[in-house]
Amino acid sequence: MHEQTDTSSSQPSHDGHANVLAVRDRRTGETHDLPIAEGAIRALDLRAFKTDPDDFGLMAFDPGFTNTAACHSAITYIDGERGILEYRGYPIQQLAQQSTFEETAYLLINGELPSSGELREWNEDLRGRMDVPDSFEDFFRTFPPEAHPMTMLQAAVGALGPHYPDAANVTDEAVRREHCLNLVAKTPTLAAMAYRRKIGADPVRPDRHLGFAANVLRMMFQGQNRNCEHPVLVRALDILFILHADHEQNCSTNAVRGVASAQADPYASMSAGVAALSGPLHGGANEAVLRMLREIGSQQRIPAFVDEVKAGHGRLMGFGHRVYKTYDPRAEIIKETADRVFAVTGTNPLLDMAIELEQIALGDQYFVKRRLYPNVDFYSGLIYESLGLPVGMFPVMFAVARTSGWVAHFLEQAVDPERKIARPLQIYVGERDRSLDPSHQAAQLEGAPLG
Amino acid sequence: MHEQTDTSSSQPSHDGHANVLAVRDRRTGETHDLPIAEGAIRALDLRAFKTDPDDFGLMAFDPGFTNTAACHSAITYIDGERGILEYRGYPIQQLAQQSTFEETAYLLINGELPSSGELREWNEDLRGRMDVPDSFEDFFRTFPPEAHPMTMLQAAVGALGPHYPDAANVTDEAVRREHCLNLVAKTPTLAAMAYRRKIGADPVRPDRHLGFAANVLRMMFQGQNRNCEHPVLVRALDILFILHADHEQNCSTNAVRGVASAQADPYASMSAGVAALSGPLHGGANEAVLRMLREIGSQQRIPAFVDEVKAGHGRLMGFGHRVYKTYDPRAEIIKETADRVFAVTGTNPLLDMAIELEQIALGDQYFVKRRLYPNVDFYSGLIYESLGLPVGMFPVMFAVARTSGWVAHFLEQAVDPERKIARPLQIYVGERDRSLDPSHQAAQLEGAPLG
Repeated sequence: MHEQTDTSSSQPSHDGHANVLAVRDRRTGETHDLPIAEGAIRALDLRAFKTDPDDFGLMAFDPGFTNTAACHSAITYIDGERGILEYRGYPIQQLAQQSTFEETAYLLINGELPSSGELREWNEDLRGRMDVPDSFEDFFRTFPPEAHPMTMLQAAVGALGPHYPDAANVTDEAVRREHCLNLVAKTPTLAAMAYRRKIGADPVRPDRHLGFAANVLRMMFQGQNRNCEHPVLVRALDILFILHADHEQNCSTNAVRGVASAQADPYASMSAGVAALSGPLHGGANEAVLRMLREIGSQQRIPAFVDEVKAGHGRLMGFGHRVYKTYDPRAEIIKETADRVFAVTGTNPLLDMAIELEQIALGDQYFVKRRLYPNVDFYSGLIYESLGLPVGMFPVMFAVARTSGWVAHFLEQAVDPERKIARPLQIYVGERDRSLDPSHQAAQLEGAPLG
Repeated sequence: MHEQTDTSSSQPSHDGHANVLAVRDRRTGETHDLPIAEGAIRALDLRAFKTDPDDFGLMAFDPGFTNTAACHSAITYIDGERGILEYRGYPIQQLAQQSTFEETAYLLINGELPSSGELREWNEDLRGRMDVPDSFEDFFRTFPPEAHPMTMLQAAVGALGPHYPDAANVTDEAVRREHCLNLVAKTPTLAAMAYRRKIGADPVRPDRHLGFAANVLRMMFQGQNRNCEHPVLVRALDILFILHADHEQNCSTNAVRGVASAQADPYASMSAGVAALSGPLHGGANEAVLRMLREIGSQQRIPAFVDEVKAGHGRLMGFGHRVYKTYDPRAEIIKETADRVFAVTGTNPLLDMAIELEQIALGDQYFVKRRLYPNVDFYSGLIYESLGLPVGMFPVMFAVARTSGWVAHFLEQAVDPERKIARPLQIYVGERDRSLDPSHQAAQLEGAPLG
């Protein structure tokens, strides 16, 4: 979350002061030093504080893990105070302007930018992997058309697993990589199939001659009389994929790492990522922005809406972020992208409202004091809508992009010497020492003797 | 994890000492008190320790969350030191002897034992829910027979979601409950369908006149000339389901809670639970025990194997547990159950080896000193094998049972005022402040202008 200069444990800092918390347990009078390293103390060190030798020792309590670092990571750097987002050290703004999603995925997964030869090979490799087993056509037909496409995608990503039994061999680096690349390449195909199922159209298979974003648009919209080949629209989707590719230990990435910590295969792990992202608190924010704009209804009603929010009624969606305490660095890029998209697709009254709402909020001390700035979700939904996507597909597109980050974390964790199976503690507050009546026998036993 | 007597924050304890850690930050000389409540300090309180006003403050570092309580919970109590496991306060031994899986699931989910009328209604309700949409027959046919049944189950549980779009409304208590009960009732049906797919047989639909365990055996084995109706075998499976029904914040339950923390629906959440359980470090231990026994090969070779383990070669599977530092309370019950099962199915040379291995290990100071006692997995695999289940089905049966615990946690978290979206921090150790060459343009852009 923040840059650390002191990485040594318990060593004196530059000015001669030790990097420790000197702790006196006032229950016992005992003292222990807690070493500070990299801006953190180790939760396990709290066990030293015991009230008697049989005591378990202290633990940390942290619902949501809001102040617990789960791992060391070298993938994505965020400084929420200063509005910095970097993938492998490269600022998101540069990647959005000068890179493609495929190249960005390479960077996230491999740690370095590809040479032009490596990029060509990588693109070939991904394109060669995009198709899915034929039986997925039947698979999607088993779902009713009223299904939410995100629930279909979650099942579909998991359903890749049965087709690749060798993926279980996750202790083999080559196997891990093989199936992680499969996931990056096949998730967009499954995403498009979910959309086609939703609209009752036959699936469109990937085209090896198209790039990632162009393929996604084609697989969704072919034969639907949509302007889906326009380079500005293709590039807009490409940029959205870049912006959503990773965001360090977010809820879905934590789900992926948690599931993978038991040595589950990449398909099961990414399916859990999609599951987390299907939760509206995680992947549903841009849809909520559109709903809010529609509920406001017109530009004239914005000031009244803002007053309502300030009075504690209603909520300003797409503003503020658990991590960013300033302007979300992705929001600016998305806003520019939205302008270019609307120049092609025609303007959208919701966009005008969004711009107006942003202006009012940024000029209002109420929001500024609370550090409520527009986040990535404030404009992304408007772009998706202009591309012709129904709101149910917004989190699906998010998942397509984030798969690149998830697999980067999966691969990083697999070789992390500190990795442990994710198994938190709890504080038990329930009943104790109850007893069944000695005559208790559950009524229904199908003739089986109990005991 | 352990019983707490002091539940008040910062209040003086009985002997007049305050429940606080008095902490001096030796980097700055500043002091702060960290209140202790319920055996824990709050990880967020560490933020008070800053080196300057702009500093983020300290965090906890805890890979695997080994010393971080993620929540308050009133479902399952474990005292690993004393070998105690209680569901809602009732000891596991009593439930295994006097209850059924259905009644135990009621207890876990509702917090209290049912009256006989409530139990009758509950059983009726569950049986009425066991069937799954017809299209699941096609669904399972999309998988190749070489698929691992656990990967099929993971996809299948997720694939329930598209059939129940109203499940997304997780803020409605009745909706949550409806779909959680669906999951308890339908997961065994999907599990049996995965097995039938594996052996190339048509699925068998549930029978409303049979109990839970009897139904599972029938749906798997009907028409296969297996002794699957014997009351001792039905009851043995019932007991295994009781023993595996919950185990507080284990890896899969943490995955379920983490996914649900974003307000994902119950199907996506439980699918993530199955995903975590598919990891061999979590759900694969009983299979590993069987493999170990087969590798040892005969009773005579046990002493040599034990010597190898002590010399650091090979590992004694099914012994020791992250939580239990004494005999796993479930292991004793399972051993007795195994004896009854083998009296029906005939003895098994692997069981004799297991008993011999346990005797030797329990009498050997090397294992006793390391507190390596048999755990629940040491005998459960032998029982499953005697019931006629292939090893790939062991984690599937585990998931069928654990679904009752997962939904109990899902429902508990949904009304927990302390719940927060699960989003840990990280310690960033990668590159910083890199810059793309100003001339950098990713090679492949399909004609779209960058920027």
